[in-house]
Amino acid sequence: MTDGPAVAGGARRRGRPSRTDSVEGPGARERILTAARAEFAARGYEKASIRGIAKAADVDPALVHHYYGTKEQVFEAAVEMSFAPALNAPEAVLDGGLDGVGERMTRFVLGVWENPVTREPLLAIVRSALTNDVAAAVFRKLVVRQLLRRIAGELAVPDAELRAELAAAQLVGTALMRYVIKLEPLASADPERIIARVAPVVQQHLTGS
Amino acid sequence: MTDGPAVAGGARRRGRPSRTDSVEGPGARERILTAARAEFAARGYEKASIRGIAKAADVDPALVHHYYGTKEQVFEAAVEMSFAPALNAPEAVLDGGLDGVGERMTRFVLGVWENPVTREPLLAIVRSALTNDVAAAVFRKLVVRQLLRRIAGELAVPDAELRAELAAAQLVGTALMRYVIKLEPLASADPERIIARVAPVVQQHLTGS
Repeated sequence: MTDGPAVAGGARRRGRPSRTDSVEGPGARERILTAARAEFAARGYEKASIRGIAKAADVDPALVHHYYGTKEQVFEAAVEMSFAPALNAPEAVLDGGLDGVGERMTRFVLGVWENPVTREPLLAIVRSALTNDVAAAVFRKLVVRQLLRRIAGELAVPDAELRAELAAAQLVGTALMRYVIKLEPLASADPERIIARVAPVVQQHLTGS
Repeated sequence: MTDGPAVAGGARRRGRPSRTDSVEGPGARERILTAARAEFAARGYEKASIRGIAKAADVDPALVHHYYGTKEQVFEAAVEMSFAPALNAPEAVLDGGLDGVGERMTRFVLGVWENPVTREPLLAIVRSALTNDVAAAVFRKLVVRQLLRRIAGELAVPDAELRAELAAAQLVGTALMRYVIKLEPLASADPERIIARVAPVVQQHLTGS
């Protein structure tokens, strides 16, 4: 699929969609997904609408359904897009074995949250998941199964999945308290200070006795 | 102040509020606070309105402002009411000293979340705080300062406040993953199994080297 930056600025005329990609312009599919991600990030799952996504992508709402299905499926595709960089995380975190896996996992998660470009879509997903059951199901399916199960699979301990989830609870909780609730001194603390305190705890969850 | 269950059912005529409590009926102040808590719990901080609270309490919106001030101040009063049982938590958690403080804190927090009666208002507050900056500020002020600072004050360690916040991050993260996102196996795990894994981590945060 080619991207169509030349037509992505909304210069085309609006109207009923044709059935062919060529009339919608190249890249309509990608434009819809980008617009969906922005709409869900800005308004959350509940308030976001297919109509709003279609308008931002400069297509007819029917085309959004044609490519992606229901609102839930559009959300799932947008979450998958946001999480694409993180889907390699298990390999990055597990590379080097279980020694130091706690620190690598902590550094990876804090790195994603520390960067506003990767933080904003992630925050939108977490907020949607915490306030809407459909979004929570998507979060469980994509994030948890794809990330945590793969990490748990490498742990040669009983309760591996529960351990991975409790490690994730520490990391998600820390991110929410630091970047959203903005507790002090946590919100202003140097990331290395946080890693020094959190990494051993994550390691204990994953491999401790 | 007396409670007024006899007039709380909405039997009074609506109209402009008088300046006196007696015309509004006894317990108008309490009715407003109860209605505010229900409204914020059901709709979240952003969608909740003074008008909706007034309607549920069967008073004029002006009376809500008269007693509690701005929407933010009404929210603060409602959060304070929800947290009243938890405000004794630091004493309960710290009684018995620092040995076992991790387990007592973990049991206390899981106990509050395990009971639907105490979970629902707490969840409403956390959701509001995670999606609205004004609500986040109220959460910081009441919950964190009143609970975490008092626990931190008993810890004879450097970084006591950061430690208390990271312990809270583990507990809040665990509660959100278990009761809201409903990750499995965490969501269905016996509370004692969770306490066995989380309490040592909370203890390490609070008193570990």
